[in-house]
Amino acid sequence: MTYANTDRIQRHLEQIATFTATPGQGTTRMSYSEQGQQAREYIKAQMLAVGLTVREDAIGNIFGKLVGQDATLPSVMIGSHFDSVPNGGAFDGPAGVVMGLEIATLFHEHKLTPHYPLEVVALVEEEGASFGRGLLASCAIAGKVSADELHTLRDAQGISAAARMADVGFNADDVSSVIRSPDSLKAFIELHIEQGPVLEQHGTDIGLVDVIVGITQLVVTISGKAGHAGTTPMDNRQDALVVASRVVSQVGDFARQAGEATVATVGKLQVFPNGANVIPNKVVFTVDIRSKSEEKLNQVIALTKGCIQQNSGEGITVQVEQPLYVSPTPLNPGLHQRLQKHSDQLGLSSRTMVSGAGHDAMIFAGITDVGLVFVPSRNGLSHHPDEWTDYEQIQKGVDVIFHTVKEITEATQHD
Amino acid sequence: MTYANTDRIQRHLEQIATFTATPGQGTTRMSYSEQGQQAREYIKAQMLAVGLTVREDAIGNIFGKLVGQDATLPSVMIGSHFDSVPNGGAFDGPAGVVMGLEIATLFHEHKLTPHYPLEVVALVEEEGASFGRGLLASCAIAGKVSADELHTLRDAQGISAAARMADVGFNADDVSSVIRSPDSLKAFIELHIEQGPVLEQHGTDIGLVDVIVGITQLVVTISGKAGHAGTTPMDNRQDALVVASRVVSQVGDFARQAGEATVATVGKLQVFPNGANVIPNKVVFTVDIRSKSEEKLNQVIALTKGCIQQNSGEGITVQVEQPLYVSPTPLNPGLHQRLQKHSDQLGLSSRTMVSGAGHDAMIFAGITDVGLVFVPSRNGLSHHPDEWTDYEQIQKGVDVIFHTVKEITEATQHD
Repeated sequence: MTYANTDRIQRHLEQIATFTATPGQGTTRMSYSEQGQQAREYIKAQMLAVGLTVREDAIGNIFGKLVGQDATLPSVMIGSHFDSVPNGGAFDGPAGVVMGLEIATLFHEHKLTPHYPLEVVALVEEEGASFGRGLLASCAIAGKVSADELHTLRDAQGISAAARMADVGFNADDVSSVIRSPDSLKAFIELHIEQGPVLEQHGTDIGLVDVIVGITQLVVTISGKAGHAGTTPMDNRQDALVVASRVVSQVGDFARQAGEATVATVGKLQVFPNGANVIPNKVVFTVDIRSKSEEKLNQVIALTKGCIQQNSGEGITVQVEQPLYVSPTPLNPGLHQRLQKHSDQLGLSSRTMVSGAGHDAMIFAGITDVGLVFVPSRNGLSHHPDEWTDYEQIQKGVDVIFHTVKEITEATQHD
Repeated sequence: MTYANTDRIQRHLEQIATFTATPGQGTTRMSYSEQGQQAREYIKAQMLAVGLTVREDAIGNIFGKLVGQDATLPSVMIGSHFDSVPNGGAFDGPAGVVMGLEIATLFHEHKLTPHYPLEVVALVEEEGASFGRGLLASCAIAGKVSADELHTLRDAQGISAAARMADVGFNADDVSSVIRSPDSLKAFIELHIEQGPVLEQHGTDIGLVDVIVGITQLVVTISGKAGHAGTTPMDNRQDALVVASRVVSQVGDFARQAGEATVATVGKLQVFPNGANVIPNKVVFTVDIRSKSEEKLNQVIALTKGCIQQNSGEGITVQVEQPLYVSPTPLNPGLHQRLQKHSDQLGLSSRTMVSGAGHDAMIFAGITDVGLVFVPSRNGLSHHPDEWTDYEQIQKGVDVIFHTVKEITEATQHD
């Protein structure tokens, strides 16, 4: 049985982690920054070293291709993204890029020739940390990003995405050339850290994602009436925070009752005027709701909106905006089965699970068959300098994908 | 029957309102600022014009004294403060100062000679807007402020209270000279706007305060565990905001059940890290609890602390600080009766009520007999540019106090 090389995986991840704008304070690597370019050069060099043909598309995604016996066949693509959030971790994204590099290395070492081409991909701009647009690269590949949008999106310094791309030699105006037609791809498989506590808590090696959750975000504004905390009798108050608190304390229960991996979170809440002796006249808060079931997602949205509406009247007005709604994305059952089979054959423990976070895999699911493999996150932590996955755990994930890729590329050993 | 002059009251209040650092955006008058000095000169000039002997103490309180038939007798003191909060209103404080000026004017006009001296007082630093120390002047008069404290207290620019005082000719080191011994005072009567909705809603002219509420402030910190809003299952969360919301939604009920004008307010609440897709790991909020009954005050404090403690455990820790506790302050029943009698004789409607806010009268109650008269606040609004009380309503309050003061100073008309 062939196994991935843990030391190599560690070396790659440690090296990529050095490309950070915040040494000692986690990984900060914007796609078109100096650190992004350093990571790019490193990844390209590793691809070339194991015999891949390297190409960058118009917005900077990196493809390392191993053409097999028939260059006209669609590719099996593997990889993830190499950008980070500010002060994030070393694994969110790079673990999947290194999976691709390691599998190409195994193909190279073991003289494996695929029948279907193998493409290792390192994607830019998954996090949306630069321009507030998550999944930018995969969306461009799926034909969902226009040149206009790239000229409009701006970073915190007010520089457009297009200008940032031009700075490092890419061309936003040519974004349509980035599109991959469905018939150019046979499959896309991503490895990612779980970013949650489930695998670690169950002592499970491998998470096999069957569905990426649907997600909505509500922005709720409760308006009441300000007043002096000492001089306004209790029966004469329209306290926006009391009303907001009733809603906040219930949304989690709606999700719990719905089941099917439904979650609901009020993460952001602001009180106005926010003075200790002033009755709050306005509270604005977000509700983030996710579920693997579209029915349950809509059920919790309806219960939350109903709960909010119930609290309006008698001087309290409510307003609910819904800036985001994405349906759940089922991944390919055939690929899921194959990944499961190889995990079992490798003697690894695995569980089928949902992905509670969005990933590039979600966008690729619109154009090809997609598989997504999770490896455990220590303490469920992510987007944090302490983000951590043991290299041995990443190696196990790579093993599962390697054997699956070997099978679906129909690779054969040459002499 | 002698009545106060509404036009004069209006003219004084309109003139004092012009001494603001934020013209067109309400009254901003810090005690030792340019605007504070302008108000000071105006008030002193008015006192002199009606025959008062003017004196300023070491921290800038202004006293206009009408010595009566016996200079050795204790004074009947009337007035309020002339500082404001930032962008506050024109009535909170000055209404009571103008009451003092108008009553001195009536004494002057009607050639009234008091047996007990009459002192009109215009106090500095009631709001605490400059140095974060409310009731500073009355506390100094009651002997509760040291020179050290005045050197330590600093404003937003980092300048000490002592330095601000020195800038305009006062002397913090001499603060002990400000103390008024109980035997120098016969009574203190303050007029203040209600800053609440009760008088207006009941169509009542006069509020006669019998108790200034006791007040406590709790600062509560709920700590849980941050996590990704999408990848952390509902049964695996230690969400600090959900716990805080349970507490916030209940504290008002504790106050309602207690009765006796007990109120409880969460006015200030901050969520950390406050991201839409991050489970909050910390929430800090204040609980402001007030009651006319010390028993009820302590009951609501205990219920609130119990409710908070109930929610600790299972990854949630709680911390409660109590930076402020002041017992309820009963005012003088004899003075209350006299004020009531004169209100009735003037044909005015009145009600006995608590003061839900602290006032200089509360501090004076430690050294002399105190009466506190409220006049209606339009929409209960205060600390706001739109703060408003009809001049006719202020005049009615002045009338009640004038006749009471005339009685207790044992004034007689001379020719």
